[in-house]
Amino acid sequence: MIIIAEKNGTLDALLEHVHALDFKTDVSTGDERVVIGLIGDTRALAEDQFSPLPGVLEVRRITSKYKLVSRQFRPTHTVSIGRQVIGDVMPHPLIIAGPCAVETEEQALRTFAEIAPFADVFRGFLYKPRTSPYEFQGLREEGIHILQEVKRLYPEKPMVQEVLDPRHLDVLNAVTDVYQIGMRNMYNYELLQEVGRTGKPIILKRNCAAKLEEWLLAAEYIATTGNMQIILCERGIRTSLSGEYSRNTPDLGVIPAIKTASCLPIIFDPSHSTGHADMVEAMSSAALQLGAHGLEIDVMPVGYDRTKLRVDGAQAITAVELERVARAARK
Amino acid sequence: MIIIAEKNGTLDALLEHVHALDFKTDVSTGDERVVIGLIGDTRALAEDQFSPLPGVLEVRRITSKYKLVSRQFRPTHTVSIGRQVIGDVMPHPLIIAGPCAVETEEQALRTFAEIAPFADVFRGFLYKPRTSPYEFQGLREEGIHILQEVKRLYPEKPMVQEVLDPRHLDVLNAVTDVYQIGMRNMYNYELLQEVGRTGKPIILKRNCAAKLEEWLLAAEYIATTGNMQIILCERGIRTSLSGEYSRNTPDLGVIPAIKTASCLPIIFDPSHSTGHADMVEAMSSAALQLGAHGLEIDVMPVGYDRTKLRVDGAQAITAVELERVARAARK
Amino acid sequence: MIIIAEKNGTLDALLEHVHALDFKTDVSTGDERVVIGLIGDTRALAEDQFSPLPGVLEVRRITSKYKLVSRQFRPTHTVSIGRQVIGDVMPHPLIIAGPCAVETEEQALRTFAEIAPFADVFRGFLYKPRTSPYEFQGLREEGIHILQEVKRLYPEKPMVQEVLDPRHLDVLNAVTDVYQIGMRNMYNYELLQEVGRTGKPIILKRNCAAKLEEWLLAAEYIATTGNMQIILCERGIRTSLSGEYSRNTPDLGVIPAIKTASCLPIIFDPSHSTGHADMVEAMSSAALQLGAHGLEIDVMPVGYDRTKLRVDGAQAITAVELERVARAARK
Amino acid sequence: MIIIAEKNGTLDALLEHVHALDFKTDVSTGDERVVIGLIGDTRALAEDQFSPLPGVLEVRRITSKYKLVSRQFRPTHTVSIGRQVIGDVMPHPLIIAGPCAVETEEQALRTFAEIAPFADVFRGFLYKPRTSPYEFQGLREEGIHILQEVKRLYPEKPMVQEVLDPRHLDVLNAVTDVYQIGMRNMYNYELLQEVGRTGKPIILKRNCAAKLEEWLLAAEYIATTGNMQIILCERGIRTSLSGEYSRNTPDLGVIPAIKTASCLPIIFDPSHSTGHADMVEAMSSAALQLGAHGLEIDVMPVGYDRTKLRVDGAQAITAVELERVARAARK
Repeated sequence: MIIIAEKNGTLDALLEHVHALDFKTDVSTGDERVVIGLIGDTRALAEDQFSPLPGVLEVRRITSKYKLVSRQFRPTHTVSIGRQVIGDVMPHPLIIAGPCAVETEEQALRTFAEIAPFADVFRGFLYKPRTSPYEFQGLREEGIHILQEVKRLYPEKPMVQEVLDPRHLDVLNAVTDVYQIGMRNMYNYELLQEVGRTGKPIILKRNCAAKLEEWLLAAEYIATTGNMQIILCERGIRTSLSGEYSRNTPDLGVIPAIKTASCLPIIFDPSHSTGHADMVEAMSSAALQLGAHGLEIDVMPVGYDRTKLRVDGAQAITAVELERVARAARK
Repeated sequence: MIIIAEKNGTLDALLEHVHALDFKTDVSTGDERVVIGLIGDTRALAEDQFSPLPGVLEVRRITSKYKLVSRQFRPTHTVSIGRQVIGDVMPHPLIIAGPCAVETEEQALRTFAEIAPFADVFRGFLYKPRTSPYEFQGLREEGIHILQEVKRLYPEKPMVQEVLDPRHLDVLNAVTDVYQIGMRNMYNYELLQEVGRTGKPIILKRNCAAKLEEWLLAAEYIATTGNMQIILCERGIRTSLSGEYSRNTPDLGVIPAIKTASCLPIIFDPSHSTGHADMVEAMSSAALQLGAHGLEIDVMPVGYDRTKLRVDGAQAITAVELERVARAARK
Repeated sequence: MIIIAEKNGTLDALLEHVHALDFKTDVSTGDERVVIGLIGDTRALAEDQFSPLPGVLEVRRITSKYKLVSRQFRPTHTVSIGRQVIGDVMPHPLIIAGPCAVETEEQALRTFAEIAPFADVFRGFLYKPRTSPYEFQGLREEGIHILQEVKRLYPEKPMVQEVLDPRHLDVLNAVTDVYQIGMRNMYNYELLQEVGRTGKPIILKRNCAAKLEEWLLAAEYIATTGNMQIILCERGIRTSLSGEYSRNTPDLGVIPAIKTASCLPIIFDPSHSTGHADMVEAMSSAALQLGAHGLEIDVMPVGYDRTKLRVDGAQAITAVELERVARAARK
Repeated sequence: MIIIAEKNGTLDALLEHVHALDFKTDVSTGDERVVIGLIGDTRALAEDQFSPLPGVLEVRRITSKYKLVSRQFRPTHTVSIGRQVIGDVMPHPLIIAGPCAVETEEQALRTFAEIAPFADVFRGFLYKPRTSPYEFQGLREEGIHILQEVKRLYPEKPMVQEVLDPRHLDVLNAVTDVYQIGMRNMYNYELLQEVGRTGKPIILKRNCAAKLEEWLLAAEYIATTGNMQIILCERGIRTSLSGEYSRNTPDLGVIPAIKTASCLPIIFDPSHSTGHADMVEAMSSAALQLGAHGLEIDVMPVGYDRTKLRVDGAQAITAVELERVARAARK
């Protein structure tokens, strides 16, 4: 941590304050400003412990607050889902696909049958957080038999399930290989830790307003439970210009930034970030070119009437396009 | 709901689609566009059920998705906290104040003693969601005896406690008169409903990226449990310009907008929205002038060294300023 | 234009107000709301002519304010630069490339020599608007001889020049085939019209906070001068998350949205939207897959020390990467 | 300027690079990072001269790029408009008021007559930049006789006029005491300098997406012409939540931030920042409490039908409310 301070009579009191907290300092005096470097582990310090003091112009961390998920302390790291290894050394990007929500047995089984040749991992959620209480909330417990059937038919395909509440873990456990924390729960630290303790791999989606450091600190909450099986997932941000023609604004620049800052793999969700089926393919290929370790994509059956879907009908692609995406990813 | 469509050959198929869903329509033909009005309750319809169809230019709701918390269906409504009534008919705005977090017994008791003459309701949280797992997380269960002591000393002062997890309700129940849902949990619908079922009044803070309708729909989730004792709280939004000199950007314009759209009372948090003690007074007075039903303010003891606070040290005011705010509010 | 109004006693006065403005109306009465459609050309009406009236809930345009640049009224349209035609029928996307600013004769001539085989159109600006008055402002008039030399060496390559002030047109005229309006001047309507009157093709960059309609209305200002030789250019938006790891956030979703709304061609600037040379290639390919009609890219000479560039050193690629981008574009 | 770098073998080359630019350095070595301070005037350096180098993690200015308008170098400063002095020592805040645009002689003269007792300075623009070319653009040259009449009737009232183009200065000169640069032209540096050269006081509105430093650097462009008669004006920012119920989001937190960073006076425009007449009074009082040096307010005649205004009809107040605002300001 460095403190940028005025070059005047307030400096002595400021240094005394820092020393009283048992930090050594390194003072660098410029023409107009003084830079005070604090030497030692400053992770537990808050900026507010210095910013209100006289003469302080800015308090700035130069080391990140996260440590376990940082690239600096763990240059190489991989996550395992079944026999697949996700990380910088993987043979080709991971394709996670399936219905946004499991709506009916027929819709789910048709979708999984069609995508099985192209998807490495399945998704299709029972619990769906919806903006309105009057919208379909997922089949919840009622749909568990559908997923049991999917697991019976495709025993080799790991299944991702979103979890909204620690009390749902018991129900989900038997049909879930990978838990997902959705963007609405990225700041729900109690849930993050509880899911972390299951020891299963976790996909942590980025909140639509989350800064890079907030996202990595949410991952750090999981990591402090001893579970490093974390995959980050970018799914678009909310901006003053999103919402009209694009559901969110895909923030592809975060992919290389995460790869520099963190050892965790990062995947991209082209479906929720754009909200439009016809943007999925182009965004997927850009994300992979920028180094994404995988994609998570909403799919509906070939020939399905998308206006009949109860969740996110405008953004689902079919296995026809998924095959193209998967082939391109394997190149 | 209205559908704005092209004035061309796609219109018949579109109308057929709407009629198949059992909605009557009212078609208004302009020079360039056609407006199709759907007659009936469209709350459960999704825009995506029409937007992907040929000829559709825009799908727009003209009635809100929320109903229970809407001003339209409930022109007058009040919330009761103890003997106090919060709403359009209240004698003066409600002052909620106290430490951001209970950090020590001494800090908490001194703060409450000093503000008791000016605060209608106390706050001082045991559970604090923090961006980093390495920051102080609140005293949690360990601090319960401090709040028991506060309740013994000030039996007439209702106490607000933030709740992060349904599993904490048992611990908090005895010391809590009003539950608060913080901005990180506004989209945590499982928690909202569980807290709703306690029947106690609830302060629902707005997420820093939440649109007005999303916020009211989160309130609607609580209302569907039968609990209408909901108070909304604006606490600043995240913008491309916040973070540098203002922690968040106070969105005071939302206060009159909420009063038009909803029957729920709305209060304002000048502490978290600005992050600076010296902006609290001015923002409080603006919020009240715009019609806010109350304020929720962070306080520290008179003479306290704010750099010693473990949570949000830069934004706490003392009872000296709180008295001025409370007096102005009572005018 | 439609007016969404309350279904109550205020309706008659509202209709009278509309009729007094000589608009016919079409009134559609739903369960809770009334939708009043105004029939006729509403382009010159302001929303504020209705929104303050009693009972009005919302005023909404259903036809765009722009007409000349609208796809609706001009389904096909192309722009010509030299012998090249830009628009939906072009053989392959247009590659515009060159130095961000002309800094020295050597840097400019080396860059143009290296990219001549891959660039359809040259750029390299004499006038550079810079955030600080103490930064290099471009060679301005002093650099004109360099561009004369470039035109002598590459007579078949059209040259783009940014224009900041109507009074610079005389100086620029001889060396300019295409004028560019930068993002800082998108709202500078006096300049737009003056440049429009030159009759030369114009690249209109999007302001980093501009909504789609504002951008198209800026183009409409040019079109009203009789000049339809307009090419739109997306160059990234400012968000609460941009600036840290990505200079701006590329808003690729605007590309298909523009192609639906407008007849004007749209190109993409991967250099300014990302600010990082190593993101240029991936973003370029995504933009082309989404239908962009071309790319505008910053280039520096092979082997050049990018820290020696006075403008935007971090984002320039070399002819080596440009060749790859151009080859991919030609597929 | 400081460079935060990795503590590894890249450090020597980095230091060599800095020294080659003739800067002395002060190197501070922490546990994980190295902080290199550059000693000397770094205003003309670009971050990109260091950020692409191996080992560089971040390049950060610790002194501002602006100097002439900085509080640090000019602790006290005032601007004079007529006999009024604007700055930290003024007796009471400045009230600038008048029609948004001069639309008719009758509307302008009635407005000025009614507000003359309460307004220190008049505004009422002839040139209005409008989002659409089909909207009323102001009376422009045609309205000059109206302003001449206003000046004849109220010779002691200084008049503010917005200027859009250097070529309009001749027309405006005779009726203008203070030039205003609107938010659309804040980045139009050629215009800023040309208007600066007139020597008259200038109100510089903040662009709706401008960072604090960008705004002060725009002011610095004016200051470099030798004209320090600059007043800053906050008028609301564009956010992901503005536009629906509030035209822009008033960013009141920027007022104290500007007073710390800059010697220039800062005023607030409650009309354009909110877009609603009924928010003007509350926002005005908050701005003054936070230290604003004045207000700039849109007014219409008492009893006027606001839907008849061609510009910004929803936000104009009348002299009745202006009197209240002015009285409160004088306290």
